[in-house]
Amino acid sequence: MITETLASFVADTPAVAIPAGTAHMLRLSMLDWVACGMAGRDEPVACITRDMALSEGGAAQAHVFGSATAMPARAAALVNGATSHALDYDDTHFAHIGHPSVAVFPAALAVAEAEGLDGAALQVAALIGIETSIRVGVWLGRDHYQTGFHQTGTAGAFGAAAACARLLGFDAAQTMATLGLVATRASGLKSQFGTMGKPYNAGLAATNGVEAAALVQRGFVPNPLALEVAQGFGPTHAGQAQATALDGLGDSWLFDTISHKFHACCHGLHATLEALATINRPAPDEIARIDITTHPRWMTVCNQPDPSTGLGAKFSYRMVTAMALSGHSTAALDSYSDALCANPALVALREKVSVTASETLTETQAALGITLTNGQTVSAQHDLNAPITLDDREARLLSKAEALIGADRTRALWQAIKTPVAARDVGQLLGP
Amino acid sequence: MITETLASFVADTPAVAIPAGTAHMLRLSMLDWVACGMAGRDEPVACITRDMALSEGGAAQAHVFGSATAMPARAAALVNGATSHALDYDDTHFAHIGHPSVAVFPAALAVAEAEGLDGAALQVAALIGIETSIRVGVWLGRDHYQTGFHQTGTAGAFGAAAACARLLGFDAAQTMATLGLVATRASGLKSQFGTMGKPYNAGLAATNGVEAAALVQRGFVPNPLALEVAQGFGPTHAGQAQATALDGLGDSWLFDTISHKFHACCHGLHATLEALATINRPAPDEIARIDITTHPRWMTVCNQPDPSTGLGAKFSYRMVTAMALSGHSTAALDSYSDALCANPALVALREKVSVTASETLTETQAALGITLTNGQTVSAQHDLNAPITLDDREARLLSKAEALIGADRTRALWQAIKTPVAARDVGQLLGP
Repeated sequence: MITETLASFVADTPAVAIPAGTAHMLRLSMLDWVACGMAGRDEPVACITRDMALSEGGAAQAHVFGSATAMPARAAALVNGATSHALDYDDTHFAHIGHPSVAVFPAALAVAEAEGLDGAALQVAALIGIETSIRVGVWLGRDHYQTGFHQTGTAGAFGAAAACARLLGFDAAQTMATLGLVATRASGLKSQFGTMGKPYNAGLAATNGVEAAALVQRGFVPNPLALEVAQGFGPTHAGQAQATALDGLGDSWLFDTISHKFHACCHGLHATLEALATINRPAPDEIARIDITTHPRWMTVCNQPDPSTGLGAKFSYRMVTAMALSGHSTAALDSYSDALCANPALVALREKVSVTASETLTETQAALGITLTNGQTVSAQHDLNAPITLDDREARLLSKAEALIGADRTRALWQAIKTPVAARDVGQLLGP
Repeated sequence: MITETLASFVADTPAVAIPAGTAHMLRLSMLDWVACGMAGRDEPVACITRDMALSEGGAAQAHVFGSATAMPARAAALVNGATSHALDYDDTHFAHIGHPSVAVFPAALAVAEAEGLDGAALQVAALIGIETSIRVGVWLGRDHYQTGFHQTGTAGAFGAAAACARLLGFDAAQTMATLGLVATRASGLKSQFGTMGKPYNAGLAATNGVEAAALVQRGFVPNPLALEVAQGFGPTHAGQAQATALDGLGDSWLFDTISHKFHACCHGLHATLEALATINRPAPDEIARIDITTHPRWMTVCNQPDPSTGLGAKFSYRMVTAMALSGHSTAALDSYSDALCANPALVALREKVSVTASETLTETQAALGITLTNGQTVSAQHDLNAPITLDDREARLLSKAEALIGADRTRALWQAIKTPVAARDVGQLLGP
């Protein structure tokens, strides 16, 4: 009875039971989510979904990235989900195989704004919603993802529904109804990857959660067990019903192992960039050659040898290595430009980079060796699963946010999250 | 390439290519759809979805059953889909295994109203949308339904998207994009049957179609083949990719074989009621016994021997037979009452009814024999698949509509459909 257990976790977990470190991690994810959303506000998928929602008008319940005009919560959740995932720069949970923040925060913020709730309640609900989405994702399992379902959209809808149920003060029975109802609407296909359909899937998760909760609030009676029963969501969507998915629920938080992106490029390049960051950077003309070793799976994903476009650069070991060694920020979006790909100094440097695959490394590891013209060698390696302290993470996420939205907005935003202000005031920060 | 073929059918079929009989059948389904929606407007699922949508406010683009207040087209489609399927009295297509009208008409009417289009364009688009939903349903096949997907919601979303694409004047490429986009949002679980979630699934189909078209109209670029590619809708949703699904598309219309419900009870009882309608009704006190023979599958579905509630009566051979023989309308919703189940004359008559199963009959057939107290016997049989002339169908649907919404509203409605008035004027007929 996964639904019953989840519902009781959502409805009954006291805020005081949340460890301080977990609560701080949630604030960091919230900062990162807002920064990614603000940075993505002019992306085509953001403009298109926002324009559709603004054309509908309606009650000024919640704010969206890139507009001063508030709109109904259901619509705002759709727009903010799609907008914050547009750059694919938001956080990831590898057990859940998806992006929990872009599914849950848009729903939680919209409902908290509409209900006039405070920021502390918003953060607790978002955390509980994100944890729910991760647990549902683990319960659905790898088969669900491999079959072609985009967990950000599917498991994310249950997380969004959970966050909204919590914000509306639902008891466990109402929360079960919300989870059961959203089961008939949760969706998202991986065949949309590489198109605007991918970030749209995040918006679907968020708005589906808001809608399910709004209907249950008005007395809607669905099958409350439609996540798990025969012909329910899991059985019909290649779910594995992983028995251990809820182990420790309420005591330990899978959310604690969420990954934040610190580079605006393919995740397969991140271990290499982290390894590069640990060495004293030699001057480009002192470098004779650079050898990178990575897991074989990345060779077909992000090993474009000579990219000519900014997008291509995001999938190129040689290019991002040259960028990092030349002092170009791999965290800033506008670093990845067509012009840089044609820059003679960068091209000369990337010609010195060789990439080799090795089964001795895991998917999260990379190793590099730099041979200098004087014969010296420098080597480094990194594993993305290596622990990172909360302080380091905070410093890096603040730096990322500054690169995305500037120092002033980052300062104001972090202040509003660290000492939580009303959800409405957070919403107003999203605008232009 | 099912999507390409469907898109060209949707975008390029000239209105003049539609046979007159098919066009008239569409008008009959539209009449039936509006009558079912009006009759369902006070059902809980209708009130709940309508209340949610009204609370959001917004542009007065389209009307809904049961309210004089217009709302955005996306919201109106959701409300009208759920409302018109609330009574489960709308039409069915047995090849598609779903209810095409409640998925497609709400989308088509909302967009036609919002765009200020005329009723003729609305009817053409609705027909093309319904035909698309049936074809997609056949392409997905029995496995899709048996696995647990509710075709009304899933295949219906593609039909709704097609109707909207047609109304917006999309070319084949834009229509493919609309079908590809709705693939990532199409949903609906059979595990919601027996709850408000079932009619809600019809609303999902409708609103998903409106949303996909509205986004593509603004330049959204999805995977246009997400219905059929690897990790697309069909492959991830137990679709069988039935090769013959599109045979004759544009030349023959599967829509022509749509079934309308003429009795407000379980479909398993309809063949018996049709057989009863063919005989000269003896007076109850002249009847010694009544023997009904039906296909074995119905014995566990609708053979409650002694129902005590109106709902129970809808699943009782003995009760509906007694009702029909006593002159109570089995088409009228309020015939099925607790009071009638306790009526001594009806109880005495139903005691004379025996129900037997026989494998010699198909699921759509029933046979009956009445033995009179004077020793005479009367027998009759019926097959729901027997052809019915358009004139007979029209007369019966008008009579059904009168039973549901009264003679005056039926007359006005049929007039507005037969000689098509502007979509906006049709919309205004839905109100209270």
